[in-house]
Amino acid sequence: MSENVRDANMQRINNKQLAEAFIDEQIKQIQKEVGNKKVLLALSGGVDSSVVAALLIKAIGQNLVCIHVNHGLLRKGESEQVIKVFQKELGANLIYVDAVDRFLDALKGVEDPEEKRKIIGKIFIDVFAEEAKKLDGIEFLAQGTIYPDILESKGIKAHHNVGGLPKELNFQLVEPVKLLYKDEVRVVGEALGLPHNMVYRQPFPGPGLGVRCPGAITRERLEVVRESDAILREEFALAKLEGKVWQYFTIVPPFRSTGIKDNKRTFDYMVVIRAVNSIDATSASVEEIPYPLLFKIRDRILKEVPGVNRVLFDISPKPIATIEWE
Amino acid sequence: MSENVRDANMQRINNKQLAEAFIDEQIKQIQKEVGNKKVLLALSGGVDSSVVAALLIKAIGQNLVCIHVNHGLLRKGESEQVIKVFQKELGANLIYVDAVDRFLDALKGVEDPEEKRKIIGKIFIDVFAEEAKKLDGIEFLAQGTIYPDILESKGIKAHHNVGGLPKELNFQLVEPVKLLYKDEVRVVGEALGLPHNMVYRQPFPGPGLGVRCPGAITRERLEVVRESDAILREEFALAKLEGKVWQYFTIVPPFRSTGIKDNKRTFDYMVVIRAVNSIDATSASVEEIPYPLLFKIRDRILKEVPGVNRVLFDISPKPIATIEWE
Repeated sequence: MSENVRDANMQRINNKQLAEAFIDEQIKQIQKEVGNKKVLLALSGGVDSSVVAALLIKAIGQNLVCIHVNHGLLRKGESEQVIKVFQKELGANLIYVDAVDRFLDALKGVEDPEEKRKIIGKIFIDVFAEEAKKLDGIEFLAQGTIYPDILESKGIKAHHNVGGLPKELNFQLVEPVKLLYKDEVRVVGEALGLPHNMVYRQPFPGPGLGVRCPGAITRERLEVVRESDAILREEFALAKLEGKVWQYFTIVPPFRSTGIKDNKRTFDYMVVIRAVNSIDATSASVEEIPYPLLFKIRDRILKEVPGVNRVLFDISPKPIATIEWE
Repeated sequence: MSENVRDANMQRINNKQLAEAFIDEQIKQIQKEVGNKKVLLALSGGVDSSVVAALLIKAIGQNLVCIHVNHGLLRKGESEQVIKVFQKELGANLIYVDAVDRFLDALKGVEDPEEKRKIIGKIFIDVFAEEAKKLDGIEFLAQGTIYPDILESKGIKAHHNVGGLPKELNFQLVEPVKLLYKDEVRVVGEALGLPHNMVYRQPFPGPGLGVRCPGAITRERLEVVRESDAILREEFALAKLEGKVWQYFTIVPPFRSTGIKDNKRTFDYMVVIRAVNSIDATSASVEEIPYPLLFKIRDRILKEVPGVNRVLFDISPKPIATIEWE
C-alpha cells in the first residue's frame, strides 16, 4: 500500500501556488486514470467530498455523477447550498435524492445511539446503491478520503466514507486528496473557488444532526436542533468566530422542563449550546463565549425557535465528556 | 383580620437596636400568650422557622418542642446543622425524625412534578401529625409565616407553612414574625445569634432537592444533586458570592450522555449549574459567573462526584424559563 503513504519530502500545501500545482497535477492524473469513463461521488457538502467534486468537475466534467442524499439530518440550508454551488454554479451532473421520510421513518422510536448510527449508515448505502444501479457504465467511485482517515484506519476505526457498498457495484476508487491533511484540503478548496463557508465548514458527524437529537429522533425536536444551530452559526459568523472556534453546534435532549409565558406554565425543550476548541478532536476545551454574545444567542433562540423555554451552555471538556453527546 | 395588617408607621427593622427591641417585645408577647403551655414547631432549618425557634427558645425554653423532619431531600449538612445549632448550642427540645426511606420509597417511580409535590406535602403532614400525637398537652403551633406569605395568600397561593394538619390537632397559632419582611427576619436572626449562613440561606423550595432531581427521583441521582450542590455552595462562598447571588443550585436531569474516561466510553449523568439574581422571584436574570470560577466548579464536580461526565450552565432568564426546573 505504498501509494497510501505520504512522501516525507512532500511539501505542505499552504498557499495558492502550491494548491494550483496540486490541482493541475491531480487533473492530469484523474484524466489519465479515468479516461472517458464515468465516476460516481457521494456529495455530502462537507469539505472533503466538495473538494473532490470540484477537482473531478475540472478534470472530467459531466462524466462525474454526484449523488447528494438528503437524509433529513442535514443542517439548515445545507442541501440548498450543495445544489446552488455544484449544480447551478459549477454545472455538475448532480442527482438530488430526497430520502428524508425514509430515514426518519426508519429511525422512529429508536433510542440506542449505536442502533441509530447503524440505521443511518445502512439506509445511506441502500439509497446510494439504488441510485448507482440506475446509472449505466459507471466504473469508478470517487471518495473524499484524506490522509488522517488512512492513518486512523490502521487500527482505531474504519474511515467514514462510502464503504459497505454491494459487491456487484465493483467500483475502482478515485481518491485524489487521500494524501492531504485537512488544512491542505481547505487551501485546495479555496483555490478551486469553493465558497469560504463550505471550505471552512466545521467537522460534521456522518449521522448529522441525528446525534444532536439524542435518544429517539422526532421531527419536532430535530427542527429545534436545526433552527437553533442555524442561529448559533449565524451569530458566530457575525462575531467573527467562524473558522476560529473549532466546532460549535446545539443539542436538544429528549427532556422538557417548566417555564412561564404570559403568566402561564409551559413545558418545553431546552437547547444546549456546545462550542469547543481542539487540535485533533482527541481532546477539546470549552470556548469561553463572552456573556453578551452568549445571551444574544440565547435570546434569539428563545424568541425564534418554537417549543423552547430554556438554553444551557455545555462547559465540559473532552475528556471527561465527549464533544458530541452520543 | 386587622392583626394581620402591618401598621403603616411600623419602622423597617434594619439594625441591631431595632431587632433587639422587636425581640424583647415578642418575648413578652409570646410569654403572655402562651403562658406555661407547650408550643410545637416544624423546624426545617430555613431562615423563617429558625428565627421563630430561636425567639421561642428565649421566651419559653423547653416548652417549645421542635420537630425536624429529614425527608431525604435536604441539602448536604442541613439536618446536621439544625441539630448542632438548636439542640447542642441553644439546648432546644428537638425531635429529629429520620423519614428518608418513607419519603423516597413513596416517591419511587413518580415522574409527574405535581404528584411529587403532593406526595412530599402529604407525607410531611402525616409524619408531623404522628409525632405531634405522641406529645401531651400541646396547645400551640408556631409557624414561620412572614408578611409576604400573608400578602400572597390573598389570592395567588396559599402560603407554604404547615397547613392541612388533622382537625383533632386543634392548635392555636403562634406567628411571631408574621408582620416582618424577609430582610427584617434576617436582621432579627443575626441579633438572635443564629449562624450567618443559616440567616442568609438562599430560598429553598418546600419539596427540597426533589424538584432538582426532575422526573422520578432515584437515590443515585439525588446523591449527585446533593454533592454537586455542596461543591457549588462551597465555591460560591470562597468566591464571596454567598449572600450576593440570589439563588444558586444544581439540577441533575434524568438523562445521560456519552463521555470518555481512560479511553473507555462512559454513559453518565450531567450536572446543570443554575445561578440567578432576583428581587422577588417573579423575574430573574442569570449571574454571569466568571469563566475561571465556572471551570473550577465544573472540574471539582467532574472529579469529586461519581457518575457525572458533563457539566452545563443554565443561562435562561425568568421568564421564559422558571428558576427551578419543575
